[in-house]
Amino acid sequence: MPKLVDHEKQKQLLAEATWRIIRRHGMEQASVRHIAEEAGISVGSLRHYFATQSELFAYSMQLVSERVDARISSLSLSGPPLEDMKKVLCQLLPMDEDTRSEMEVWIAFTTKALADSSLKAQGDQVFEKMRLGINSIIKALVELDLAVPDLDVDLETARLHSLIDGLATHAVINPDSMTPDKLEELVTHHLKSLCKSKKTQKEQP
Amino acid sequence: MPKLVDHEKQKQLLAEATWRIIRRHGMEQASVRHIAEEAGISVGSLRHYFATQSELFAYSMQLVSERVDARISSLSLSGPPLEDMKKVLCQLLPMDEDTRSEMEVWIAFTTKALADSSLKAQGDQVFEKMRLGINSIIKALVELDLAVPDLDVDLETARLHSLIDGLATHAVINPDSMTPDKLEELVTHHLKSLCKSKKTQKEQP
Repeated sequence: MPKLVDHEKQKQLLAEATWRIIRRHGMEQASVRHIAEEAGISVGSLRHYFATQSELFAYSMQLVSERVDARISSLSLSGPPLEDMKKVLCQLLPMDEDTRSEMEVWIAFTTKALADSSLKAQGDQVFEKMRLGINSIIKALVELDLAVPDLDVDLETARLHSLIDGLATHAVINPDSMTPDKLEELVTHHLKSLCKSKKTQKEQP
Repeated sequence: MPKLVDHEKQKQLLAEATWRIIRRHGMEQASVRHIAEEAGISVGSLRHYFATQSELFAYSMQLVSERVDARISSLSLSGPPLEDMKKVLCQLLPMDEDTRSEMEVWIAFTTKALADSSLKAQGDQVFEKMRLGINSIIKALVELDLAVPDLDVDLETARLHSLIDGLATHAVINPDSMTPDKLEELVTHHLKSLCKSKKTQKEQP
C-alpha cells in the first residue's frame, strides 16, 4: 500500500517541521502557516493531513513518544540488570542532539497542554505509559532480590519518575553542567541507592 | 516616597495579570494587548512601566522567584533539622493554589526561555540560586553529621535539585496523584535516604 505509506511519511515530515519551528522560535510561532512553510507545502496541502492545528500538535507529541519506544525496543539488553535498567532509563533523557531535540519539544508540548485541553489527553497517556515503565523497573529490583528490604514500590516509582523528568529538564535548560556522563552517573547512583549493598546481598542464603 | 511605591505596586499588578493570562490561555496568548486588557489599563499606560514585552516577562519571572524567597525567609525554623529542611524544600513545590499558580507560570517561562534569549539570563540566575540553596541543605546534612558516610555533595545536590523540579512538574501536570501530602512524603523519604540510620548514628562516639 504505497499510498498509505506515503501518507504516514508525509505526516511525519510535517511533525518534524513542527518540532523544528518549536525548537527554533518557540510554541508561539508554531502556526499552521509557519509549519507549512517550513515543510515546503501549502497550508491547503497541510490541511489534507491535519484538519486542525490541534490534530497536528497531538500527532507531533505522539511521535516523540513513539521514537522513545522504538529506541527502547531496539536496545540489546543482556548485561547485568542494573546496567540494562540504566540503558532503558537513559532513553528518556537527552543523551545526544536528536534526543535533546525530542525532549525540548516534549517540554514545550507538556507546557502547552496545561492550558490546552486538546493536548492534555495525549500528554496524560504518555505520562501514564512512562510511569508504568518505571514501575516495572522498580518491581524488577524487588523480584530479582536486589532491592533494599521493605522498599515501597509506589513511592520509589514516583520518586524515580520525578527524578527522570527533572534530570531531562535540567539537561535541556543547562546542558553544560548536566552532560550525558553526569546523567548516566546520576541514574546509576540512584538505582544503586535502591539496592542492598553487595555485602548484604552475599549474606543472603 | 509614595510615588515609587505606587510604581512598584503597579508593576506587580501587571505581572500578576501576566500570570493569569498565561495560566488561563497559555503563553501564546500573553500579548501586551491581552495583558493590558486583563489589568484594566491601556497599552500606552503599560508601556510606561515596561517598554517591551521582554521586560514585562523578565519582571514577571523574577517576581515568582521573589515570592518563593519571601516565603522561605518568613518560615519559623526551629524544629529538628530534617523537619526544617523539608519545610524549606516544600516552598519550592506546589502545596496550595497560590504556589501551584506560581509553578505553572514558572514552567511556562522556563519553556519560553529555551527559544527566547531575553528570558534565559533571568532563568539561569534563578536556577543557580535554587542550586545553591539545595547545595547548602546537602552540606548541612554533612556538617550536622547526619549524612551517610562518603556522601558526594555535588552529586547529591544535582540529584535533589532535579528531584524537586521533577516533583514540581508532576504536581502541576498530575495534581490528583501528586498531592501535597505525597510531595511531603517524598521529600522526607529522600532526605532520610541521605542520612545514616538512627542505629548507626547512636553507634557514633
